[in-house]
Order: sequence, then structure tokens, then C-alpha cells
Amino acid sequence: MLFSGRRWLTALLQAQRWPFQPSRDMRLVQFQAPHLTGPHLGLESGNGGGVINLSAFDPTLPKTMIEFLGQGEAALSVAKRALAAQLPVLPRSDVTFLAPVTRPDKVVCVGMNYVDHCKEQNVPVPKEPIIFSKFSSSIVGPYDEVVLPPESQEVDWEVEMAVVIGKKGKHIKATDAMAHVAGFTVAHDVSARDWQMRRNGKQWLLGKTFDTFCPLGPALVTKDSVAGDVILTGTPPGVGVFRKPPVFLKKGDEVQCEIEELGVIVNKVV
Amino acid sequence: MLFSGRRWLTALLQAQRWPFQPSRDMRLVQFQAPHLTGPHLGLESGNGGGVINLSAFDPTLPKTMIEFLGQGEAALSVAKRALAAQLPVLPRSDVTFLAPVTRPDKVVCVGMNYVDHCKEQNVPVPKEPIIFSKFSSSIVGPYDEVVLPPESQEVDWEVEMAVVIGKKGKHIKATDAMAHVAGFTVAHDVSARDWQMRRNGKQWLLGKTFDTFCPLGPALVTKDSVAGDVILTGTPPGVGVFRKPPVFLKKGDEVQCEIEELGVIVNKVV
Repeated sequence: MLFSGRRWLTALLQAQRWPFQPSRDMRLVQFQAPHLTGPHLGLESGNGGGVINLSAFDPTLPKTMIEFLGQGEAALSVAKRALAAQLPVLPRSDVTFLAPVTRPDKVVCVGMNYVDHCKEQNVPVPKEPIIFSKFSSSIVGPYDEVVLPPESQEVDWEVEMAVVIGKKGKHIKATDAMAHVAGFTVAHDVSARDWQMRRNGKQWLLGKTFDTFCPLGPALVTKDSVAGDVILTGTPPGVGVFRKPPVFLKKGDEVQCEIEELGVIVNKVV
Repeated sequence: MLFSGRRWLTALLQAQRWPFQPSRDMRLVQFQAPHLTGPHLGLESGNGGGVINLSAFDPTLPKTMIEFLGQGEAALSVAKRALAAQLPVLPRSDVTFLAPVTRPDKVVCVGMNYVDHCKEQNVPVPKEPIIFSKFSSSIVGPYDEVVLPPESQEVDWEVEMAVVIGKKGKHIKATDAMAHVAGFTVAHDVSARDWQMRRNGKQWLLGKTFDTFCPLGPALVTKDSVAGDVILTGTPPGVGVFRKPPVFLKKGDEVQCEIEELGVIVNKVV
């Protein structure tokens, strides 16, 4: 699946007239490797490339993205120096990619953000965004399996651009919004339609938050300025539930979610 | 307000035939005091009593409730020894009570859990519980102020018993449920009815999660066995929105939420 429309991002960019050039920006990842203990912070050497171990460059850097973002510009400038240096690159086959952000305080999701996604389900375009949430326990890595919960018969896919918030704020002016954004990543907003649409008093939470229902990654692509909350910006049209007849995910399926410049995540359904 | 009906708790207790004797159990608190740096873990010496500083008894104990619960029985047994020892008690006037749990991974809330709360709003009793959530950023201390958000004109109160989960699990049998419960506390599920009922596509999240909308405390009253997720079990009848005419919170109001044996929380509305 290829994601091209970018109403939300366009709004952010128009607010600040900031040129979106992710290909020249940093691609921060969380990864594991056989010779390293526990999760590490790294840099993907280009979309689909190998990984530079940031701890090897500077052992004082935090090993988690949330702590890294918490250090703001100081940590970011170290990563910039690492990017400029000629450092060894671990082959992609030697590393396991984790979600670029794990255990954020909030996973905020925007519903009905694409006009054509509203049209495919025959509902009016809402005048203000609909906000719902997933629990952070639903986050898995970019190439991890999506586990079909026995409680649902209608598991569907949604490809989304996710915005990672790097700086706290409240009542932020639209023109200042980009100052709070650390970067962007690809999200798979896996959705159990039976639970979302017909059960739980039509509150979407449970249908959206089964374990493994939020693959993220592969990289947090920075926008050159740096808390760690994740905003999923809503899916464009093309989901399974509104096809005729409806199509749902089944065991053995593999879902690829791709956003130009940001990358691709691949999740096998088990 | 006094909370007496306990459908949820009764269900838990019936599942295990476990005698509810909170008055003989521990009352764990998080607190601050002028002579101490940062948040500390303590024991309330009885409902409404002073505070015993657990760090003074054993400096190796964690200083936050989430970390304490993560250590399971080991940490709990140290706290039991502290309770049995004759330790100095800080007068209540000398300490600031924080919420007993801060930054849990999940705040899970149950809607429509009381038959008479369903009756007061003229809706059918749901066949299964309705689950929604608050962000942990809405949690404040038991005596902190509730700030009326300028975005809402209909802020209402709900007194609830909160269950604190102390042990991970999935697909847990009803008979094993109590093994995952660390204890109980009092919650004020502050609710912006305009946002909950008429805006945001009727998804309750935003109406339930404004800053300061989840006062908790004063103590986590243990059930003698020990993650830190919080479950709010739903309000009994008596909320403002279903009165005729409706009554909402206004600046200067003071809301007291009390549950027998557990304690009372008091929040001024500003």
C-alpha cells in the first residue's frame, strides 16, 4: 500500500512553511543485535539501509528513544555528528528492528481524517477531527507479527503516517506546532471492526488496542529539531471492511504499509 | 458522596471468596515533604493518619509506586516489616499527598457499571461492560485542584472505586483475577459532558481526559498480595448531568469523593 495524500502533514507544513525533506534528515531507530545486550538506539543509513550503533559512537547517549527525545537538542546534535562521521554500518540482516518509540505516554489517533476514506464508508466528513487512542501496549516492531485475537472475526488494516511529539506543550498555536514535532514514522493501525463498530457501546478503544495492533517504524525520520507521544493521523481509503464484499485479514496474510521517503513496514498475520 | 454499592468488587470477591478487610491492610502512599527531595513512598498510618517514610526504613526501596509494585512480594514484605515496626509518623499537615500511582501504562475505565446509574439516564443496562480510557496525564493528587478547561461548559463529577493492577496477565480466569490486583483507591472521574456526549464523534476519550480530570488517592489500600495499571470501575448514580435541571461544576466548588475504608479525596474546582 502506498500512502500519498497528506492532509494533516500539509496543514502542519502550511502552518510553518517548512520544507519537507526527510531524505536529508536523520532516521533514528531502536534495534537489537546478537552481540549487543538489550535495546539500542541507532541510525538507519538511508531508507532500507543498515544501522549505525549510536552507543558505540557515544556510550553516554540514552538507549531508548523516549529518553533520547527528552534530552532535546543536546542528544540530537550528538546524533548529527555520528551521521557525519564515517562509522561502521551493521548489515540489516544482522539487526532486529524494534518500534522507534516504545511505551509512549500517549498514542493519540485521528479518525476520519481523509475525505475519500469518509466517502468509502458513506459518512459525512466531520467538521472537527475525531480523536481516539490505543494503549502503548499494542505497539510492536515494523516487521513483527500481527496476532489475530480469538475474540475478533473482522480484523482490518489501516496504513497511517504517525507524528512523534518530542516536546511538551498545551494550547499550542498552529504556527508553533512543528516546534513540538520530533519526526515521522509509518504506522499500521490494525482494527477489529466488530469490536470497533458494533460492541463496547461503539467506543473504539477495544477494537483498536488488542496486542500487536500498532506496528510502527522502521525509523523515526526527524524534521531537524527535537516527550515521545505518537499521533496516528488516520487512514486514507482502501480498508477491507468497506469493500463489497468486505475483506478481513486472515492467518498467513502479509501486510505492507509504505509511505514515500519514510519507509515500509511489513507484518505477517498469525 | 459516599460510595457503597460494589458490583465490580463483589464480582471479584465472589470469584475468590476473599474476605475484604482493608482496615487491616496496608495503605501505601506517594508523598512529598519539605525536608525530602522529590516524591517518596510511604505508609498512611490508618485512614486519615500521618505518613511513615518507607525510604527512611529501607533506603533501597524504590521511590515510586510503579517500581515498588514491579518488585512484587519482595518490596511488599519490607513494607510489612515497616508497618510492624514503631516508626516515626510525619504529621499529615507536613506532607503533600500525591496520587498513589502516577504515569501508569493504562487507565482503564468501566462505563455503565451500576444499574441505578443506567436508570438515572434512561438507558438500557449493557450486557457487557463498556471500556474507555483516560490518559495518565490526567492524574493528579487526592487534594489537588480540578481545573475547569475553557473548552467545556459542562464539567461533571463521578466518584469511583479504582482497582490497581500489580501483576501482568492476559486471558485471566475469573477465579485468578484477585492475584493480579495490588489494591484499591478512590478516584474522581471528572467528565466534560459536552465533549463526552455531543462532540468528538461520541468517542468519550477527550471528555474524560482533560488535565486534572483524574484525582486519585489518598492511598493504595493493598489486599495483601501484590505493573500499576488503574481500573476505574464506574460511577453509581448521582452525577450532575442527569439532574433536572442539570448541575455542573463551577469555580470555587469543592468535591469530596469518599469510599468506606478506602478514604476520602477532596478537590477544589478552579
